[in-house]
Amino acid sequence: MALLFHSTAARLPIWQALFAQAAEPFIAGEQFVTDPAEVTAIACWTLPDDLSRYPNLRLVLSVGAGVDHLPLMPPGVALARTLAPGIEAMVRDWVMMATLMLHRDMPVFLDQGRAGIWRTHPVRLASNRRVGIMGMGRIGALVAGSLSALGFDVAGLSRSGGVGAVPLFATSEMEAFLARSDLLICLLPLTPATQGILNAETLGHLPAGAGLIHAGRGAHLETQALRGALDRGHLSAAILDVTDPEPLPQDHWLWHDPRVVVTPHIAAQTDAAEGARHALAVMRALREGAAIPGLVDQARGY
Amino acid sequence: MALLFHSTAARLPIWQALFAQAAEPFIAGEQFVTDPAEVTAIACWTLPDDLSRYPNLRLVLSVGAGVDHLPLMPPGVALARTLAPGIEAMVRDWVMMATLMLHRDMPVFLDQGRAGIWRTHPVRLASNRRVGIMGMGRIGALVAGSLSALGFDVAGLSRSGGVGAVPLFATSEMEAFLARSDLLICLLPLTPATQGILNAETLGHLPAGAGLIHAGRGAHLETQALRGALDRGHLSAAILDVTDPEPLPQDHWLWHDPRVVVTPHIAAQTDAAEGARHALAVMRALREGAAIPGLVDQARGY
Repeated sequence: MALLFHSTAARLPIWQALFAQAAEPFIAGEQFVTDPAEVTAIACWTLPDDLSRYPNLRLVLSVGAGVDHLPLMPPGVALARTLAPGIEAMVRDWVMMATLMLHRDMPVFLDQGRAGIWRTHPVRLASNRRVGIMGMGRIGALVAGSLSALGFDVAGLSRSGGVGAVPLFATSEMEAFLARSDLLICLLPLTPATQGILNAETLGHLPAGAGLIHAGRGAHLETQALRGALDRGHLSAAILDVTDPEPLPQDHWLWHDPRVVVTPHIAAQTDAAEGARHALAVMRALREGAAIPGLVDQARGY
Repeated sequence: MALLFHSTAARLPIWQALFAQAAEPFIAGEQFVTDPAEVTAIACWTLPDDLSRYPNLRLVLSVGAGVDHLPLMPPGVALARTLAPGIEAMVRDWVMMATLMLHRDMPVFLDQGRAGIWRTHPVRLASNRRVGIMGMGRIGALVAGSLSALGFDVAGLSRSGGVGAVPLFATSEMEAFLARSDLLICLLPLTPATQGILNAETLGHLPAGAGLIHAGRGAHLETQALRGALDRGHLSAAILDVTDPEPLPQDHWLWHDPRVVVTPHIAAQTDAAEGARHALAVMRALREGAAIPGLVDQARGY
């Protein structure tokens, strides 16, 4: 029973040290596998070429928060994602920054700054700004709490609606949710049900002058629909950490439109030590038959 | 006993309505003064030409949070500034935005974006970033609480030091305070003691790679010292809401340096209704001989 590490060289020494310290069997790469039957779990971002090589494989662990880049696992193989407080805090911080930047008209001030123009615009109170969060998982709930603490009028969209620390709309109430989102934050996982969910129709339901903060996945957003909404003046601005494609080509309009700010998918990075500690918890759970932290519902996709 | 309104036309109808509702004597401008002896208080940003016209004047109320633009009052005339929860929340929001922008390397990403360059940089946790707040008044305390809630390692500088919700350094411990401020936030009032306080020497005490967030007054910062610290690579970036002079001339280097982001003194604007409500509270206190909210110690300057 061992974990096969199939990830980057930069992470390896940190994982190696923490697994050694915990006396947990660890194989530092496929080239070090002597008995494939020993491998019960694989930690990776992209899968090894041939999973059928490992007859006792029970689990694949994504070393990031997302699993949308991975295929369905073979029968009997579970899929888990890395839960790390650091990832969640990093995404929260990026979303707080981006939300405040749109709230305080930074795309306009940055554009004026490039031209050396000193011109004020009316300042609004956070309490007069309605924020809508698509995706009320762990990170969504964290963002909702932090934005509420600043006085923003926050609501969330979740599959089933219900009551939480902020008002929640169900997927069936999407139109009403969008109509009250002056600032729309996308934190959804990418699944067949959410691909292209930010499109001409949904963006059209936002109030006039709304802004978009996108920290989900590039494929959630139909980029041409964003362009249309900006050009009609229906949306005022957008801040995107994810794009389609990634990396964004140098001459792409998103880089050069003053109403759009793009960051290169840096909302979060998995800290190697945090990732290794999560992997150790997964291995313990596998051995003890306990609930696996970060287990993914493969039918649902997250 | 009446308040003389000596401020902008945009604010006038809101003040007029709230004073009428409270049955509080109100004079809508100097041209409406029939008996100067009636004027006991003047609400203004800049003073009327001749205060000696008002023999019973007891108080001048700045319609903003600052009073550094006003001269010493004649003997017997008190000075107050407007305390408004809206002002404090607005400054807090701007400071949160600017701090997160430096924490997450936005000047670098904005510069890359102008060139269409997709390149990541390591992300740090807020808990690994030391923030120092110069000026622990009402706004400083609010900022300290909000940044601490995101996990930043926050300390404050106040005249007397002491213990608060975050560690406080006294003015005499300035060097130690600066040496632990990866991100330095200036929220000081402008007084003879604080003018030019951000200079080559103080900036030099910051740790290498530090960033500056400035929402005090332009005259706190020696702009050439900032330029020198950036050029030496000692400071990495700065976000300024206040400059010297204001407005900043179109060809000023601060507009065109990619390490600097300038906003045109918009961290806060006084909401007219909040300002009028504060003025009503001041008039009530004057009549009742109670403590005047926002009273300024003119010797100290704030």
